[in-house]
Amino acid sequence: MNRFEPNLRIPGPTSLPDAVREAGARQMVNHRGPEFAVLQNSIIERLKSFYLTANDVLIVTAAGTGGLESAIVSFLSPGDKVLGITIGAFGDRFAKIATVYGAEVTKLSFEWGQAADPAKVREVLKAGGPWKAVLMTHNETSTAVTNPIADLAAAVKEVAPDALLIVDAISGLGAVPFKTDEWGLDVVVSGSQKAWMVGPGLSFVSVSPRAWEAAATAKMPKFYFDLAAHKTSAESGQTPWTPAVGVMFQLDVALNLMAEEGLDAIWKRHEAVGAAVRAGLTTLGFKLLADPAFASNTVTGAWIPEDVEWKTFNGKLRKLGLVVAGGQGALKGKIFRIGHMGHVTIPAVLNAIAVLEQTMLELGKPVTPGAAVAAAQVAALKALGLVK
Amino acid sequence: MNRFEPNLRIPGPTSLPDAVREAGARQMVNHRGPEFAVLQNSIIERLKSFYLTANDVLIVTAAGTGGLESAIVSFLSPGDKVLGITIGAFGDRFAKIATVYGAEVTKLSFEWGQAADPAKVREVLKAGGPWKAVLMTHNETSTAVTNPIADLAAAVKEVAPDALLIVDAISGLGAVPFKTDEWGLDVVVSGSQKAWMVGPGLSFVSVSPRAWEAAATAKMPKFYFDLAAHKTSAESGQTPWTPAVGVMFQLDVALNLMAEEGLDAIWKRHEAVGAAVRAGLTTLGFKLLADPAFASNTVTGAWIPEDVEWKTFNGKLRKLGLVVAGGQGALKGKIFRIGHMGHVTIPAVLNAIAVLEQTMLELGKPVTPGAAVAAAQVAALKALGLVK
Repeated sequence: MNRFEPNLRIPGPTSLPDAVREAGARQMVNHRGPEFAVLQNSIIERLKSFYLTANDVLIVTAAGTGGLESAIVSFLSPGDKVLGITIGAFGDRFAKIATVYGAEVTKLSFEWGQAADPAKVREVLKAGGPWKAVLMTHNETSTAVTNPIADLAAAVKEVAPDALLIVDAISGLGAVPFKTDEWGLDVVVSGSQKAWMVGPGLSFVSVSPRAWEAAATAKMPKFYFDLAAHKTSAESGQTPWTPAVGVMFQLDVALNLMAEEGLDAIWKRHEAVGAAVRAGLTTLGFKLLADPAFASNTVTGAWIPEDVEWKTFNGKLRKLGLVVAGGQGALKGKIFRIGHMGHVTIPAVLNAIAVLEQTMLELGKPVTPGAAVAAAQVAALKALGLVK
Repeated sequence: MNRFEPNLRIPGPTSLPDAVREAGARQMVNHRGPEFAVLQNSIIERLKSFYLTANDVLIVTAAGTGGLESAIVSFLSPGDKVLGITIGAFGDRFAKIATVYGAEVTKLSFEWGQAADPAKVREVLKAGGPWKAVLMTHNETSTAVTNPIADLAAAVKEVAPDALLIVDAISGLGAVPFKTDEWGLDVVVSGSQKAWMVGPGLSFVSVSPRAWEAAATAKMPKFYFDLAAHKTSAESGQTPWTPAVGVMFQLDVALNLMAEEGLDAIWKRHEAVGAAVRAGLTTLGFKLLADPAFASNTVTGAWIPEDVEWKTFNGKLRKLGLVVAGGQGALKGKIFRIGHMGHVTIPAVLNAIAVLEQTMLELGKPVTPGAAVAAAQVAALKALGLVK
């Protein structure tokens, strides 16, 4: 994070710890041999400990979107009634995949920046059905909002207890509280390049016994993304198709680092960096995109000042070594997003706030030098309980 | 390849050159940023030079099987008549994918160990149709046979000129002669972990203008593997879903190594190592699986002595540092396969022959010490034109 090493603050791929990076340089092994079986079995057991689940967890060689596709085609049939709860671009994508494969999808959309409302979900479920599945997004990366999955899942279980709960947890799981079994979630998808601090190329999917029952009669066409084939292979320590071995090497190391820190400490750290970023941005005069009650602790979105072009704004940040993400869909060119998941510390986000402060000064905006960095630090220390 | 570094001689993942390995340890970049666009554009141009094509080449984050799926679902519709020419497990898999997605597949199977016969293809095409596509495998990894793609393509063009030629070239392209445009091939799939000397996780697909026309009306359901979406993204230096960035870093380096060596030299080297392995194995008394006229120069399959268990045989090889692959499908436990593609030299395959010679001696087989290694070396030097 000096002049030559930019501060990569996008919501994935996230920056890799050195030990994880270096594992990417390992020589290949036979993916059908005993070393690989030991590696995969050990990775799966550790993934379960972060998913907080006793369900199967399978590894798919694909981006997170491929994991989402596997979560649709492995369990559903054309014509199935599916509720797609969406609060942004990734919720829309999830619903779209189900539609493409022939599900009868009812889309329940909430305003971008807002979380999904369990009462509204209850209402829509009551009005239709029978529901085969409900799709929901844990942490909506496009709007920087974290949905109250526990409440949403409870609402579904109350009104449509037979519906499978299929959750996109790609950009939150492993960073912020997520309890697969306690919340009764059937299928949960995550991706290597997010909280897991690993390069992109792998997606993880947990599958409940109830979902496996559904898989037995699921009729959507599938081959590469057939999770039942992945389960069969995993039972002998293999994958049905050649896995991204190098990314698995990295994951092996990253899971050790995560286990050393511990899940509670990881969650607390993300709470602190999330609070820091929001406090810093607010102090700089930025308007945040997310409803404060549901602001994500893995990514923050804010509006670019109205008189400034995205390209100008982003160019200045890049020159100072800060790499952020732009807006998606209707928000393209209007917002920027700061990722703070996985390999992230309080100093790393203070660095980002410092660059933004300098940029706002360069743009002639009225900011009090040092105030945003100080506010961010105080917010982080408060979240850690070190300051009242 | 000393005691602690096994000689990884499976037909993929192949061993990585040091410079390629090390590129896997690079820090992540923004996959929506300018550095990534430069990287992807440069990789695509160089892939085209090895594909010998002016067609589009797209990069899909998946194992080769995912590339095969993209080559089916992006261009075909349920009900399309498709001829699936198969000479082994991977040809069967290709036909299966088309079947799963609703194509009306006629399977033309040849005996394992044999190449496909263009006359037979002509005959079957004449008897049916109209054909939307013909699927064929360039180098059948399960049987170590290389199909005469030029002749097969010519046969199809003669009888069914409108049929799309869709080729699985995963384990041959980049190692042995393959001429996408000269042979008039519409869709050609390869995979990073084969001749390209890179970790698994990426598949490459070339697409002709004729295939893009078919894509416009193709009705098979698709999302992750939609190549049209990949083309749109590639035009702005991106991918539709997060790419396996670390594998792209490795590919960047590997393509430079390949360009330095030159395509003709690469083909010649594979001819030499293929000849060496076949001569060495034959001298040791092994019966080869493949018809000698179509023996692959990237992989060789041979029968395990009938009185020896695969586990015993493989255990002895592993103890001496040699990692080979077993048989697939009906050949499981009966054959072994030696990969010799990508990062492979004559000494590397002599090493494998030496281990096999010692193993055969340990098993009490009648072998002349040194003879197999010598025969292998002579065959390689003959292929290089250094010995008559």
